[in-house]
Amino acid sequence: MRNKSLLALVITLLASLCAVADDRPRARDLGIPLEGTPGSLNAITDVPGITVGHTTIIEGDGKLVVGEGPVRTGVTAIFPRGAEGVQTPVFAGTYALNGNGEMTGTIWVEEGGQLAGPITITNTHSVGVVRDSVIEWLVSQDKDLEWSLPVTAETWDGSGYSYQGLNDANGFHVKKKHVFNALDTASSGPVTEGSVGGGTGMVCNEFKGGIGTSSRVIEIDGESYAVGVLVQCNYGLRSWLKVAGVPVGMEMEQPKICVENAEYWREGSVDLPCDRKADGRVDDTGSIIVVVATDAPLLPHQLKRVARRVGPALGRLGSFAGNGSGDIFIAFSTANAKAFGYDAVMDLKMVPNSSINPVFEGAVLATEEAVVNSMLAADTMIGADTVRVPGLPHAELQRVLREYNRLNELAD
Amino acid sequence: MRNKSLLALVITLLASLCAVADDRPRARDLGIPLEGTPGSLNAITDVPGITVGHTTIIEGDGKLVVGEGPVRTGVTAIFPRGAEGVQTPVFAGTYALNGNGEMTGTIWVEEGGQLAGPITITNTHSVGVVRDSVIEWLVSQDKDLEWSLPVTAETWDGSGYSYQGLNDANGFHVKKKHVFNALDTASSGPVTEGSVGGGTGMVCNEFKGGIGTSSRVIEIDGESYAVGVLVQCNYGLRSWLKVAGVPVGMEMEQPKICVENAEYWREGSVDLPCDRKADGRVDDTGSIIVVVATDAPLLPHQLKRVARRVGPALGRLGSFAGNGSGDIFIAFSTANAKAFGYDAVMDLKMVPNSSINPVFEGAVLATEEAVVNSMLAADTMIGADTVRVPGLPHAELQRVLREYNRLNELAD
Amino acid sequence: MRNKSLLALVITLLASLCAVADDRPRARDLGIPLEGTPGSLNAITDVPGITVGHTTIIEGDGKLVVGEGPVRTGVTAIFPRGAEGVQTPVFAGTYALNGNGEMTGTIWVEEGGQLAGPITITNTHSVGVVRDSVIEWLVSQDKDLEWSLPVTAETWDGSGYSYQGLNDANGFHVKKKHVFNALDTASSGPVTEGSVGGGTGMVCNEFKGGIGTSSRVIEIDGESYAVGVLVQCNYGLRSWLKVAGVPVGMEMEQPKICVENAEYWREGSVDLPCDRKADGRVDDTGSIIVVVATDAPLLPHQLKRVARRVGPALGRLGSFAGNGSGDIFIAFSTANAKAFGYDAVMDLKMVPNSSINPVFEGAVLATEEAVVNSMLAADTMIGADTVRVPGLPHAELQRVLREYNRLNELAD
Amino acid sequence: MRNKSLLALVITLLASLCAVADDRPRARDLGIPLEGTPGSLNAITDVPGITVGHTTIIEGDGKLVVGEGPVRTGVTAIFPRGAEGVQTPVFAGTYALNGNGEMTGTIWVEEGGQLAGPITITNTHSVGVVRDSVIEWLVSQDKDLEWSLPVTAETWDGSGYSYQGLNDANGFHVKKKHVFNALDTASSGPVTEGSVGGGTGMVCNEFKGGIGTSSRVIEIDGESYAVGVLVQCNYGLRSWLKVAGVPVGMEMEQPKICVENAEYWREGSVDLPCDRKADGRVDDTGSIIVVVATDAPLLPHQLKRVARRVGPALGRLGSFAGNGSGDIFIAFSTANAKAFGYDAVMDLKMVPNSSINPVFEGAVLATEEAVVNSMLAADTMIGADTVRVPGLPHAELQRVLREYNRLNELAD
Repeated sequence: MRNKSLLALVITLLASLCAVADDRPRARDLGIPLEGTPGSLNAITDVPGITVGHTTIIEGDGKLVVGEGPVRTGVTAIFPRGAEGVQTPVFAGTYALNGNGEMTGTIWVEEGGQLAGPITITNTHSVGVVRDSVIEWLVSQDKDLEWSLPVTAETWDGSGYSYQGLNDANGFHVKKKHVFNALDTASSGPVTEGSVGGGTGMVCNEFKGGIGTSSRVIEIDGESYAVGVLVQCNYGLRSWLKVAGVPVGMEMEQPKICVENAEYWREGSVDLPCDRKADGRVDDTGSIIVVVATDAPLLPHQLKRVARRVGPALGRLGSFAGNGSGDIFIAFSTANAKAFGYDAVMDLKMVPNSSINPVFEGAVLATEEAVVNSMLAADTMIGADTVRVPGLPHAELQRVLREYNRLNELAD
Repeated sequence: MRNKSLLALVITLLASLCAVADDRPRARDLGIPLEGTPGSLNAITDVPGITVGHTTIIEGDGKLVVGEGPVRTGVTAIFPRGAEGVQTPVFAGTYALNGNGEMTGTIWVEEGGQLAGPITITNTHSVGVVRDSVIEWLVSQDKDLEWSLPVTAETWDGSGYSYQGLNDANGFHVKKKHVFNALDTASSGPVTEGSVGGGTGMVCNEFKGGIGTSSRVIEIDGESYAVGVLVQCNYGLRSWLKVAGVPVGMEMEQPKICVENAEYWREGSVDLPCDRKADGRVDDTGSIIVVVATDAPLLPHQLKRVARRVGPALGRLGSFAGNGSGDIFIAFSTANAKAFGYDAVMDLKMVPNSSINPVFEGAVLATEEAVVNSMLAADTMIGADTVRVPGLPHAELQRVLREYNRLNELAD
Repeated sequence: MRNKSLLALVITLLASLCAVADDRPRARDLGIPLEGTPGSLNAITDVPGITVGHTTIIEGDGKLVVGEGPVRTGVTAIFPRGAEGVQTPVFAGTYALNGNGEMTGTIWVEEGGQLAGPITITNTHSVGVVRDSVIEWLVSQDKDLEWSLPVTAETWDGSGYSYQGLNDANGFHVKKKHVFNALDTASSGPVTEGSVGGGTGMVCNEFKGGIGTSSRVIEIDGESYAVGVLVQCNYGLRSWLKVAGVPVGMEMEQPKICVENAEYWREGSVDLPCDRKADGRVDDTGSIIVVVATDAPLLPHQLKRVARRVGPALGRLGSFAGNGSGDIFIAFSTANAKAFGYDAVMDLKMVPNSSINPVFEGAVLATEEAVVNSMLAADTMIGADTVRVPGLPHAELQRVLREYNRLNELAD
Repeated sequence: MRNKSLLALVITLLASLCAVADDRPRARDLGIPLEGTPGSLNAITDVPGITVGHTTIIEGDGKLVVGEGPVRTGVTAIFPRGAEGVQTPVFAGTYALNGNGEMTGTIWVEEGGQLAGPITITNTHSVGVVRDSVIEWLVSQDKDLEWSLPVTAETWDGSGYSYQGLNDANGFHVKKKHVFNALDTASSGPVTEGSVGGGTGMVCNEFKGGIGTSSRVIEIDGESYAVGVLVQCNYGLRSWLKVAGVPVGMEMEQPKICVENAEYWREGSVDLPCDRKADGRVDDTGSIIVVVATDAPLLPHQLKRVARRVGPALGRLGSFAGNGSGDIFIAFSTANAKAFGYDAVMDLKMVPNSSINPVFEGAVLATEEAVVNSMLAADTMIGADTVRVPGLPHAELQRVLREYNRLNELAD
């Protein structure tokens, strides 16, 4: 068992490496007409100080044997102030557009207006181990640690009664070492997207999805700030999907999610064997976690306002926030690092409400782009029970956008 | 003063008449490709029992003299169960995407999950008189009435420090008689749209807006229900506006909001004299009230879920829900009329969460269409200080949509 | 009619005068063992800058004739920064323990975290006129005023189907002049309590109640701050009432609320004629509005925390927050007056969460005392239909407390 | 390590046994004058169908060695419909009076109004393992399980920077087997109180606390229902504590929490060595989880109302809900078991708002009594680093109550 675990870790690290090496074009590279000005990385890490780490767990193939695999899952960690600033909280606020999901730690974020420690994202059935492991990691950094209430969120990559997913979620394959790895390897710089970290096994608008990121540079009273977004995208129906306002989901012809080896197909699943003709999934079964970050000095109640703007952003993409979806968002500001002392009466900075609109715009636009990026970065994946989730075909997407006069034709 | 009031009332009634008589095309008449199947009226009144009444107050021209006019305002009333069912509450839920506005009565809706009496909508500075007049009207119907906590909402049609609006809002021209008139004339059937009722002086995405409505027919387990929406649209920047996903606001060339008689222009106003070249309004100064109704039997917590779906709907239209906007929504269900007794333990019906998605879709789609209808129905209006707010030019809108291959070409 | 109005105003002003002149003992004067250290006035006005004004409307006697009277109502106004600071918002937060009531303006307080203008309190059916009149008063002070969303709250002093109250609430006797008077006469210094202002016709735990106030001096990191509370008390059942933890409501023998002139008694009312033996009111029909103020620099999310502490305070007094009660609270901080500019990025002060407990304690203790004060200050009142609401008998209260060893015996 | 684990399990089971065998008097046995009528068990299990299971983990003595012990912790599990009804949700609602704590699963409870699976309570740093283990247990019962979002709550029994607690919380001693044991052994009938299950190492108002329970029988329209409460009590300062309204915490003289072996005392801890004179803890460091259950048919929004009533209940006990406290409450109704189908439109029952007051009263009164029971049932405990937490001395409590004429003298 130990050897198998070691092997898994090696695969994990290789997978991460591959992901980094992969050089798939992002939304702007394809000429998709997106609004606003991104930061230099077009990633959440454009907000200074933020680091991101992924552990990607890809193990086994073929028939699902609960507890053995196949495994397609992982953990993504986001440090608002980097690992070295983990003791210093940030102001934060959350919002659930449709709360059929979990984000631990939000009760204290709502009450105290602040968030300490990293934000982690994983699959639904591994939220507990990731949460407790974050605490153990924090204790390992600081033995005097008081209690901790980590923020850990999830989307669902597993199989159940009504459909077959990519991952053996009920095998509980995420372990402490995976969490520590994501925390220990978090870094600034470009963020790997697609089928990595918590997003490894996720499905976005019936295409392979996962992690996506984007950012906007905004200006408030002559000062420049960044608004960065990271999503773990697992929501949506293809028929709803709009990109740049174009109903691409209705127009694209390509394979549906299906089970390659019909033997492994389970009666009652909405996924059909690949050799059967069908309309594919009929209900919104997914979720999306969105993390919005900024270095603009916003107060907790203002960060709740920012988190609420993810709703309109998903609306642009065509979402109705279906009942089965855990559409849960958290926004934080890295400003005011000196406000979290234990002495009385701290000095703060605040963007007044009357100047806050650029943050709202940035949050909406960067969320829209991050979702598109999450699909573009993820290639077709075959997982548990040979379920195949097709990647969003880039050329076909461009074809449809061009048809609607909504593609920027790029010079070579 | 009395004579003047009488005159105003006559004008009001004539205006209402004109509004009814007006036969401007609606969104589908122009070939705008909107999703879903509307009810026979394509109006909130497709939900059986709902009645709507407007009082439109249009008085005077020229320079603004506070207390004298010009007046461009009114009241819209919605009875969930008609005037005859006003004693019977409905289950209800509310949501504020951006709460820079007022909707009275929402504290009890949140607590009790129910709403009694009509919903009224007016201008910001007349919320009080409308609310109290609703109570007086209710008392006039039933002298034993206990206390009442009416739901009265608003958007802003007036002039202030930073811009000049169409109406003398600080003249407080809405009076009890106008409220009674809206309540007394409420009816089922088609709903007049555009510059009528509470929407008389409103501006939507920098075009003349006001009241709009739409509906969807949905099916749950073989049973057919209606989802109806009525909006009072006063939000948005033209540069943000998207119709059917097309960025029409950026593409349409036409007059901006401006002051025709430069003499009446006030230094500091974002509205410019019509003879000056400018980019027009630069900040989101408006609001939108959205009422969502259905006859599907939803519980209060489910109606809050429905109200939250207006967020994605406004996202489709391009909104970022700017800081100055009062984007406040209320959803109610006309089912379960027998649940509101004072005897113990009532029998109810409920759509389970697992079957609720069609209501969500209907709410999103009908809201999108109602906003577009509110602009299409409203013609250019000239108001206080000769401010001119242009109507959305139908042909120009069609031109842009056609350019993006997003217009259904209709047979004659 | 005009003359009658003038007479009413004179009566009003005389009533206010009388109220001021009245020198009834407060809770501490009677030896009630209350915790914590009050400020010098033991009033909300111990928070520097706060001013309070009342208009008390007492008119007529005998049989209720809707529209004519008798009238027992009024308006109370609280300026967080005095009338001269009315343009400068305060940070604020609200909470409804049981939201069967109205407080306008709370949607924006929740969204923006800030409150502009005075807080006003009146009877349920006059919320509208008071709200609009506040706007008119603000416009009269500043003709450039943009829209305003005033905070106006209420409790119920009227008659309805199920019981008979002191005031002809459906007569709508509160007029603009009464609101202007409360605003124009607001002052710092001692606050008149009992049957004054908005509290004129209110009933607290089945005793005559109304306005009450109290304060606490707290210390945070060596710095002294005030926490002040003002209540309009109209909630509760006598059988629930506890003072200093003693179940005084169960132990005190004295007259119940009743109708003196049996002719005016209405079949079905829970109030009985005074000559009938009965257990009195059987259901919680009231409400309580609580305003908590501090000069400690708290952020909006922290002020919501403070507002929530009114729940435990009412628990100390025995309340279960009955279904019919509008228990709605607002907390604000007068600090950070320079934070509300329109230029970008303001400087603020903040009490960190880790130092906030003294504010919580102060809010709980001052609320408890303010409620007791509201009853002690109010004498027996006879109102509409000769309804008589008994004042809380001081000596009897002392007797019961003494029996439970819970009375501080005071030196003469 | 395996042997040690087995030993621990044996100790666990013995401890549970002892707890059951223990026959300490409860609040009413001591003559404390509590209001209302309890059910036959005076426990949450008076609500038909509810089962409760505890796993108590008590291991080791002496110096704290992180990862080794001493251990004083556990898990408590509550099945709303028993283990056999675990597939059938209940309507539910939550409220945080002060959300410095964790209760997973609440985002979906808020959204969907429903709760599936057991509620579990443990220590802060074991929330994750308990949550995931609940899922694994559910999967073991039903291999077709879709995703699950368990409700797991916590209070803090560990040691940190500012004080020393009874348990090696950072040793992460709660394992899957402990969770399975609590779930597998849950039963109807009397509920063991005090230092058992999740409450094993908890401290309530500076006395040894833990699990407490109580119930009320209420009547609505001639029908009898139960309101049952279970608390895990770990909040509060002794100086705040009130029992039956009497400030017993200020009056009782007895040992404080202290470290017996001064060698193990850590500089900076608020707990002092037992041989030092001191005022004991100076800040509210605890939390309280409250579960309110009823068989009265309440809807989700009504259950939120019930959860909010725990605030006044804690107020009666003297709490100010300090900043460090996780005061998080969940209420559910076991009625309407047939409402949770996947077919459309279910039939429900509902107590109308106008009849809900008895539930509110029951919730307040049973919560008050459950907290007192949690202290009375827990004996003095010595834990990690020889920290000694004194049990609430029964005779001394009676003495103080008698002094205030607030003790029912019981016949022998």
